[in-house]
Amino acid sequence: MAGTDITRLPASATGAPAIILVDPQLGENIGMCARAMLNCGVTDLRLVRPRDGWPNPAAVASASGATGILDSVRVFATTQEAVADLDFVLATTARGRDLIKVIHTPETAAQQIHAHAKSGILFGPERAGLNNDDIALANATLNVPLNPGFSSLNLAQAVLLICYAWWSTREAHQTATTLHTGETSLASMDEVENLAQHLEKKLVENGFFRSSEQKPSTLRNIRNFLFRSGMTAQEVRTMHGIFSSLSRADSKNVQN
Amino acid sequence: MAGTDITRLPASATGAPAIILVDPQLGENIGMCARAMLNCGVTDLRLVRPRDGWPNPAAVASASGATGILDSVRVFATTQEAVADLDFVLATTARGRDLIKVIHTPETAAQQIHAHAKSGILFGPERAGLNNDDIALANATLNVPLNPGFSSLNLAQAVLLICYAWWSTREAHQTATTLHTGETSLASMDEVENLAQHLEKKLVENGFFRSSEQKPSTLRNIRNFLFRSGMTAQEVRTMHGIFSSLSRADSKNVQN
Repeated sequence: MAGTDITRLPASATGAPAIILVDPQLGENIGMCARAMLNCGVTDLRLVRPRDGWPNPAAVASASGATGILDSVRVFATTQEAVADLDFVLATTARGRDLIKVIHTPETAAQQIHAHAKSGILFGPERAGLNNDDIALANATLNVPLNPGFSSLNLAQAVLLICYAWWSTREAHQTATTLHTGETSLASMDEVENLAQHLEKKLVENGFFRSSEQKPSTLRNIRNFLFRSGMTAQEVRTMHGIFSSLSRADSKNVQN
Repeated sequence: MAGTDITRLPASATGAPAIILVDPQLGENIGMCARAMLNCGVTDLRLVRPRDGWPNPAAVASASGATGILDSVRVFATTQEAVADLDFVLATTARGRDLIKVIHTPETAAQQIHAHAKSGILFGPERAGLNNDDIALANATLNVPLNPGFSSLNLAQAVLLICYAWWSTREAHQTATTLHTGETSLASMDEVENLAQHLEKKLVENGFFRSSEQKPSTLRNIRNFLFRSGMTAQEVRTMHGIFSSLSRADSKNVQN
């Protein structure tokens, strides 16, 4: 999907969680996480003991322009320090652990993040995931419920799904569909009714109705379709033109 | 996030949409899309004119074991053929287009997919996205509302977010609106396309197009309306009858 790709760092969306990568291995993955974060207006990236040090040119190469996030990364020696200023922390886990924690989905986690002043989400190293000591620091765990037969996500995909669940619920915008109508607008009921009457007239003139019993139900079905379809004013005009054009041949026929 | 990584292909989750990649460029992206699909129990992958042909070893290398999906890929020469058996088609777009369509988010799109028997989602080539002729074939468009200053997603990320929105709501879709179709059912894309071609033929015969420049955009707008409107099979038959009836007068005229 193509889209705008502006490199400037916008103001972090209010209430966005911090993303905390513990023992991340590949710089490339750190960069892809930054990109996924910025897609969703999340800008606070923290690293605990990045294996290849920091800064890391491989991260810049894979961030697709989300370099503002990389420039403001904070690096910590321990997970405790990385979460010190937060009031709600989630630990991502792939499977059940022995620790007794509430297990959130991205959707229920998003509700909790909205309800807290400053949240953070812990992600473990690519291969092993978080260890139990890190999970114990969290208020709850977070698991993305995927196909049980194929649930492996890479780090940036997990960050994307979780950040998007937060981003898409910060307003109520996700429940509303909109109709893009360009320079025209939806036809009024009146305009659609006129079109239906125009069509009916042409059908009668052309002998469309072979039996009088069939006529009312057929007309009702045509009306039902036209009113349900959400025509624009322009589309109504086009259909008028179509019916007239097809029937102009008919009026020539009558004149002959 | 680590997790299970089983290579077997599970039975496709009931009602899962088909994913249709139009003019995909990199095999690596096709493989990553297959992985994202399988994460969410979506297994019907269709390709329209893959640039590097099919099968493609680069796709296998990047599918992280989701090879069952790649083995059952179907390749099509045109978008029309790829969507012919579907009853609801969404076109992903990054930005507003001139065509008149409902714009869905992944969340509202998921509700529509739950409400239809067999849906499909069109994704355009990596750089350019879908062209207007492909968008005109769809019932509605689908846009992932991201950070306006940084909304670029790669193909597999877009597939993941959209498939996950369907997957994560497949058990909670009782609230989705449904179209009561009585004893008929929604027309297939193929049936609507046949109707569009029938209308085009009649319009040409009746001299509807006064200038040849105007013809392609008018036909695209008519197709856009017909595909957007959600016609039933019965309504398609009725409209065929209408076009034939109106034009029968024309053929009489010619005979006179």
